[in-house]
Amino acid sequence: MTTRGGTVIADQTITADGYSAGLNQTEERPFGDDGGDGWGRGLHAWMFGAAEENRAEVEQINAASAVIMGRNMFGPVRGEWDRLWNGWWGDDPPFHTPVFVLTHHARESQPMGGGTTFHFVTDGIESALAQARAAAGDGDILIHGGATTINQYLAAGLVDELRLHIVPLTLGVGVRLFEGVPPLKLEQVTSRAASSVLHVTYRVLP
Amino acid sequence: MTTRGGTVIADQTITADGYSAGLNQTEERPFGDDGGDGWGRGLHAWMFGAAEENRAEVEQINAASAVIMGRNMFGPVRGEWDRLWNGWWGDDPPFHTPVFVLTHHARESQPMGGGTTFHFVTDGIESALAQARAAAGDGDILIHGGATTINQYLAAGLVDELRLHIVPLTLGVGVRLFEGVPPLKLEQVTSRAASSVLHVTYRVLP
Repeated sequence: MTTRGGTVIADQTITADGYSAGLNQTEERPFGDDGGDGWGRGLHAWMFGAAEENRAEVEQINAASAVIMGRNMFGPVRGEWDRLWNGWWGDDPPFHTPVFVLTHHARESQPMGGGTTFHFVTDGIESALAQARAAAGDGDILIHGGATTINQYLAAGLVDELRLHIVPLTLGVGVRLFEGVPPLKLEQVTSRAASSVLHVTYRVLP
Repeated sequence: MTTRGGTVIADQTITADGYSAGLNQTEERPFGDDGGDGWGRGLHAWMFGAAEENRAEVEQINAASAVIMGRNMFGPVRGEWDRLWNGWWGDDPPFHTPVFVLTHHARESQPMGGGTTFHFVTDGIESALAQARAAAGDGDILIHGGATTINQYLAAGLVDELRLHIVPLTLGVGVRLFEGVPPLKLEQVTSRAASSVLHVTYRVLP
């Protein structure tokens, strides 16, 4: 927890049983066995299929001044960067900010269209946060996911605000938010029920 | 899933990470290591500390015509009924209906004050549901908990409606709703954000 600069926000879509992705991620199935097509459309139908109704929550995600993500959210490549991979999002990714990708394997920064640049951070989550904070100035920093990355930041006490989008299905197995995170006290700040998703924002109490 | 008689409702208070009780239940700590006093007051503050604001949800629980609960919800006695135990709720339990307690150990029915009678069912969850249904007539049947019991009914496809009360804390370990339950498709029927709890009702789709 810090008071310098903007708010550190973790934003995640989860099932009613707390999963943000299924097992067995591949290039063809970025969300793995997600009970749907592997592209998380069941999980993320609120963003894609009902974008009008959920405009405010989508805009909140897009308002971040810097983004942090885990390597699995960035792509399916494991180990060395031995093949060209610039993310799932094409030439003009929706971030329009610096994006800090956590990885164990160094790589040159990769500028994309629309103001997005992928930076690859090999010295841990605190370094990525410091770099994101420097890039964001007074703006907010979005820990975008996946859950494994958010769990690391939660366990380290580095998240100010947790925004969840709870969707009406369960997976039973997969990557689970809060897994391995010590008990947290939260404050329910806002919440809104849309037709097939529940949006809730928690402040993480010290 | 059945269409005879009333609705089979599972109602449960869970943490943001899906737990309905901590580990290590004892007579002194019915909710185990729940991050509070062991009486679930952190978990159930919405019922006890903010009852006015949440009156509708409490009344929904009390409206059931028959109740089913697991033995751990009934009490801390394990194995044979070798000591007197008539529940945590004193002489006038809040159910005012027949309550069917799942157990492996036979015991005579125990009438209490105010219309509550505890019946002990030793031949499984389907039998308990059939008995509850017979007692409830056209009224609703409440699978009251704990999560282990609800999970068994969910896994067997016997729950029509799931009412969750999501409270702003996490436990990290404990008894978790949906644990071991195959993937479910849900329909978000209603939801309401109170000041420190999120009420959501799901219909369990076939």
